[in-house]
Amino acid sequence: MADKKITIGESIIAKIAQKEGTPFNIYDGDAIVGFAKRFYKAFSWAPEFINYFAVKALPNINILRLLKGVGMGGDCSSLPELRLCETAGILGSNIMFSSNDTPDEEFAKACELDAIVNFDDITHIEAARKACPSFPKKVSFRYNPGKDRTGNALIGNPVEAKYGVTKEQICDCYRIAKENGAEHFHIHTMVASNCLKEDEIVETARMLFTLVGKIRRETGIVIEGVDLGGGIGIPYKPEDKEMDIESIGSRIHALYDEMIVASGLAPLKIAFECGRCITGPFGYLVSKVRHVTHKYKDYVGLDACMADLMRPGLYGAYHHITVLGKAGLPLDHVYDVTGSLCENNDKFAIDRPLPVVAKGDILVIHDTGAHGTAMGFNYNGKLRHAEYLVLDGHVRCIRRDETYDDYVATQLFEPQVVDLK
Amino acid sequence: MADKKITIGESIIAKIAQKEGTPFNIYDGDAIVGFAKRFYKAFSWAPEFINYFAVKALPNINILRLLKGVGMGGDCSSLPELRLCETAGILGSNIMFSSNDTPDEEFAKACELDAIVNFDDITHIEAARKACPSFPKKVSFRYNPGKDRTGNALIGNPVEAKYGVTKEQICDCYRIAKENGAEHFHIHTMVASNCLKEDEIVETARMLFTLVGKIRRETGIVIEGVDLGGGIGIPYKPEDKEMDIESIGSRIHALYDEMIVASGLAPLKIAFECGRCITGPFGYLVSKVRHVTHKYKDYVGLDACMADLMRPGLYGAYHHITVLGKAGLPLDHVYDVTGSLCENNDKFAIDRPLPVVAKGDILVIHDTGAHGTAMGFNYNGKLRHAEYLVLDGHVRCIRRDETYDDYVATQLFEPQVVDLK
Repeated sequence: MADKKITIGESIIAKIAQKEGTPFNIYDGDAIVGFAKRFYKAFSWAPEFINYFAVKALPNINILRLLKGVGMGGDCSSLPELRLCETAGILGSNIMFSSNDTPDEEFAKACELDAIVNFDDITHIEAARKACPSFPKKVSFRYNPGKDRTGNALIGNPVEAKYGVTKEQICDCYRIAKENGAEHFHIHTMVASNCLKEDEIVETARMLFTLVGKIRRETGIVIEGVDLGGGIGIPYKPEDKEMDIESIGSRIHALYDEMIVASGLAPLKIAFECGRCITGPFGYLVSKVRHVTHKYKDYVGLDACMADLMRPGLYGAYHHITVLGKAGLPLDHVYDVTGSLCENNDKFAIDRPLPVVAKGDILVIHDTGAHGTAMGFNYNGKLRHAEYLVLDGHVRCIRRDETYDDYVATQLFEPQVVDLK
Repeated sequence: MADKKITIGESIIAKIAQKEGTPFNIYDGDAIVGFAKRFYKAFSWAPEFINYFAVKALPNINILRLLKGVGMGGDCSSLPELRLCETAGILGSNIMFSSNDTPDEEFAKACELDAIVNFDDITHIEAARKACPSFPKKVSFRYNPGKDRTGNALIGNPVEAKYGVTKEQICDCYRIAKENGAEHFHIHTMVASNCLKEDEIVETARMLFTLVGKIRRETGIVIEGVDLGGGIGIPYKPEDKEMDIESIGSRIHALYDEMIVASGLAPLKIAFECGRCITGPFGYLVSKVRHVTHKYKDYVGLDACMADLMRPGLYGAYHHITVLGKAGLPLDHVYDVTGSLCENNDKFAIDRPLPVVAKGDILVIHDTGAHGTAMGFNYNGKLRHAEYLVLDGHVRCIRRDETYDDYVATQLFEPQVVDLK
């Protein structure tokens, strides 16, 4: 099995591990920018193309600033994510606010930032009307195609998913939003997650392009932009093939000409809200081996745990592992690679062939640039760890280690009686 | 289906919701103390009986102080948990330090607190010898019975579990620990989690009592105490039956007389490290309905989410739900009860029969006193929420809501270049 490439110099990783300690996440900023530019180039034909970076994938202010520099916006799903974008200078139409089960204060903040408010439900129109000083001018609806699409394990089957408005509701949604004062209309869907099938992404474009025509015919409302959602997957396994973003771009271009231009529906802005493919492959969780143990199986115990990366424990997800400095050795040992939680699913890999591993070895866990640190918890009193960004030949610490004081910050050591009168 | 009882007055819950806002967790301190006393009474025959409360279940200093008051110790699996116990005044033999994949600084801290160090692996003896100023005087080993026991979904099959020392290693472990200077010897296992089968708990006692004899015969070492682990389950579903703690106590008493006293192995201290059954049934997640929506199914959207309770999303676990003030109504509606994460498994219940639910209703999610708040994360920028403790007729806030400032506390907004020279 071919090993996966580490795009950051191994000597840099080893040096940080030695000087600053492990574990940590490290992101290759140059590679992130490089991919972002490729993505934008593949859609350079599209009017006002934008990718709203899914903040949830890697919610660090320095990453948002980096992505803003290449023209990206932010896909926000909560008030803290809106505030991070605001601080990064991502504002107005560069924010797609795609919350679900949304509280009033989030509608109000999204309006304050003049974001595109992407409604998850027909009843949210009324909720936003009450929550905002004036109804949002730029609105979108999240479309749930129901049984027309099938979904997958991560995102659920659309017909059983909690998201979006139905086929029967979608035209009424736009009518009601317009009556409430909305002036600019977008449409959004999210039916794929970590998808490696080009056809799926293209079919999503076809579905939304069709809807744009239907909405125009049935309501007279001009949809200005489609947000094709995220879902562009990444090759977690060495044998997985990277998505051909250029091919996706040119296939959607052809569809655009055929369905939008030819029908007089142009110009139509094209957007994505990818997170995973933007930062995922360019992040690495670097961890040191604390113990190699032999029980009924052989175990490599790391200083990282589910607090640093939950996907393997939560989804059984594969993350490739490279043992630093042992690239030439045969993969003739089989280990479970574990973290230190009192939770048996705190394993980064099960029955993984690796070169012989020793205490003190540095393991690099691949593809942790998205949904890694972001999903960390403090179960078992575990603390979350630092993040580094490599850019233009410099390494910057962009998140410090969590401390015990952080861990107990919300506990009240001298609690007062609450007056319930 | 019978509803489950809420042990805290509904008017208190409603009042806190109204004055302090939702969501929050609330714990019935009087009921916790009541059950703790029952548990201790059921084992009053046992020499120096102790329950090491599994701190991971509900790591709040005020809960630890409450439990210390009824004689409990702490089962710790990390440095932050050791520090919480220290602050609560739980020290020495009242701490069972049951870490796995343990870092040096945790061995050192456990030694400093004069805790019982429960080794997870034979190689950890050497690790602790190097990490501690002097080798721990009070040691234990976590026993993994391998194929002799079967485990369950939560804890894994012992033969595939990352924990403990094997049948072949166990006697050597005690010999080596003694050679290193250990003076007091305990034994521990954890083969059940959320178990509702009395026989399983009793069989664990039989297994460890047998081992105590074997270790004495083969090494001459006197085991002073057995820790039967946790694993005493709780009735999450209305139709589940509560474990009969008195029956478990008397059955283990009979085994003790038969296997320990009759063999001249008495006195042998008996310990548990239960968390779930101590606080679980006496905690409630209180959440307000933000939206009731109709898509391809009907949804109740709460202001709580996976950040407040992860068990349903993570394990598909059942948590009972009561709609406050609607106890008399028929359960003639079926809803998915969801949180607000952009993660389709952020659902507290799927296809749950409930009375008709309206926006603004207060829902009480049962049995969140253990592994609830403790497992919360910040994915999607979600913040964790307050905890209240009801005791002696007073309500105290024992954890405040997390804020945006807490959320971004570890991010470096002005990152500096790291000098790697």
